[in-house]
Amino acid sequence: MENNNQNLCTRLTLHQTAKFLKKHDNFVILTHSSPDGDTLGAGYSLFYGLKEMGKVAAVICADVIPQKYGYFAHETDNVDSTKATVIAVDVATKSLLGSLEEEFGDKVDLCIDHHISNSEFAENLYLDHTASATCEIIFDLLQEMDVNINDNAAMALYTGIATDTGCFKYSNVTAKTHTVAANLYKYNFNPAEINKLMFDTKSRNLLELERMVLDTAEYHFDNKCILLCVTAEMQQKTGCSGSDLEGIAVISRSVEGVIAGITIKQTDDDTYKISLRTYPPLNASDICKKIGGGGHNAAAGATVTGSLEEIKAKILDSVKENMEANNAGISPTE
Amino acid sequence: MENNNQNLCTRLTLHQTAKFLKKHDNFVILTHSSPDGDTLGAGYSLFYGLKEMGKVAAVICADVIPQKYGYFAHETDNVDSTKATVIAVDVATKSLLGSLEEEFGDKVDLCIDHHISNSEFAENLYLDHTASATCEIIFDLLQEMDVNINDNAAMALYTGIATDTGCFKYSNVTAKTHTVAANLYKYNFNPAEINKLMFDTKSRNLLELERMVLDTAEYHFDNKCILLCVTAEMQQKTGCSGSDLEGIAVISRSVEGVIAGITIKQTDDDTYKISLRTYPPLNASDICKKIGGGGHNAAAGATVTGSLEEIKAKILDSVKENMEANNAGISPTE
Repeated sequence: MENNNQNLCTRLTLHQTAKFLKKHDNFVILTHSSPDGDTLGAGYSLFYGLKEMGKVAAVICADVIPQKYGYFAHETDNVDSTKATVIAVDVATKSLLGSLEEEFGDKVDLCIDHHISNSEFAENLYLDHTASATCEIIFDLLQEMDVNINDNAAMALYTGIATDTGCFKYSNVTAKTHTVAANLYKYNFNPAEINKLMFDTKSRNLLELERMVLDTAEYHFDNKCILLCVTAEMQQKTGCSGSDLEGIAVISRSVEGVIAGITIKQTDDDTYKISLRTYPPLNASDICKKIGGGGHNAAAGATVTGSLEEIKAKILDSVKENMEANNAGISPTE
Repeated sequence: MENNNQNLCTRLTLHQTAKFLKKHDNFVILTHSSPDGDTLGAGYSLFYGLKEMGKVAAVICADVIPQKYGYFAHETDNVDSTKATVIAVDVATKSLLGSLEEEFGDKVDLCIDHHISNSEFAENLYLDHTASATCEIIFDLLQEMDVNINDNAAMALYTGIATDTGCFKYSNVTAKTHTVAANLYKYNFNPAEINKLMFDTKSRNLLELERMVLDTAEYHFDNKCILLCVTAEMQQKTGCSGSDLEGIAVISRSVEGVIAGITIKQTDDDTYKISLRTYPPLNASDICKKIGGGGHNAAAGATVTGSLEEIKAKILDSVKENMEANNAGISPTE
């Protein structure tokens, strides 16, 4: 649906993108909604770069910027958005602009992104899907424009790369990613403190929620499958919801021997959101399609209504079927 | 006590170390006991390098090498250790050789290490305390000797650097660390798979132990202090002990707002090992000294006898005293 601008979207090279930025003077930089380290890191590092070039720019996000990014996400300029050049960073489709879509969805002059799935909604697009993070691209861009990277920009760039790669842990990391990180270490900031804040800090309430969730752990199919539940009551008691719960699915995929990690999160009285993480030979997408959902090979989901017991039975049935189809079923000797 | 060889220890440069290795042909490479990714990565990458040079070498460890390192820790050569040149890697004091100390403690010809606390027990020492891991040094050494790094060596080197830095998370990481990592990405192996194995895999039993430990969580002093207990019963029930429990102290230091994370581990009927992690202004070493222990500013410990309740009271008293001395005590307005 969002590809209707496809024919109008011009793919730029890095050099053309640099030229584009140099040519204009007033910018609005849009980040995606539910902002993460990469969209914010990209937005703010670009902002600091444009400031070094003597330009005027505002960073705008549909949602409140989480406090924890406050060390680089400082105040930006006041810009008349009707007269500004509009840039979107790390925004793969215009719906990801959230409440900003209405005002800006069809007015993005340039999108800078690393998602191969980018829907080409912008007038111009610089896409490098080999980049681990959009911040890796912004680094290239600032180098290409020969713009000074100040310490704020360096912190923002480092944050985006670290958060989008699980601190250099995931398969999107390349030699280039580490080369950029090595460059950023030359600036005056404390990467270890950033990493502590991003990766090793959880609230007491979240720790309490994790304890409750671990109490619900069920193992199935010779321990090849773990099932965790996050009830509405747990969310109410701890005040944790939304992105707080991302870590729960991570637990489900980190248990030794588990090839299907199921997390069932209650979103309403009889509505549950299933998150499934799988390892080969299982296919999360196939399993979730069976119950009306979808996704990727290794991570998929579905929203299902019914009682918790019904939903457990449904997803477990589908996992079992996929295990059998892939000869990963229950071993008779165990 | 272990510094009695200090005057006999010759500090080598990287170039001299390379020359030393080139000069000899038969090697025994010692790793430290309770082996981790860095000592094993250093030992095996050096082994693979020496093999490329046509030499004979054995890697020896006092303890069984954990299965999870099996992707690079393959069989090494049979070497007559009485006639071999003895190298220790990542071994800061000879007591860390474990049961190998008796045979080799006074016979180490060359130690290659990154611990600033190295006791100079070897005849020759190449120490670079700015290296994040001994593997970072071995990489330099192989480059200096112009030796081919094969894929096994690259995997071993990457593993050592990743594990000693918490996957590039900690304050020991430098620009150099990332530059070495960037170099290693050119070889044919899957860093993301290694990281998954090293950082995102825990046994079902350990997950169960963590659940039990979280059930014991107590917060004190306006939630600035968390106390976790690992009883003997929990360890028996789950079969988890020793290095399995390292992650527990990590939990205690990752709760938002906590500046004193206490883990009390039962080691015998009335004996408990306290691990303390602190953030400024608290001083873990001062706190543990008060109860007969010691350590570093941010991480210290003590072994104490008594009932669990007595021991809790003792460590909490000492924490409270340090909080008050550092004006980090209970805020009256909270």
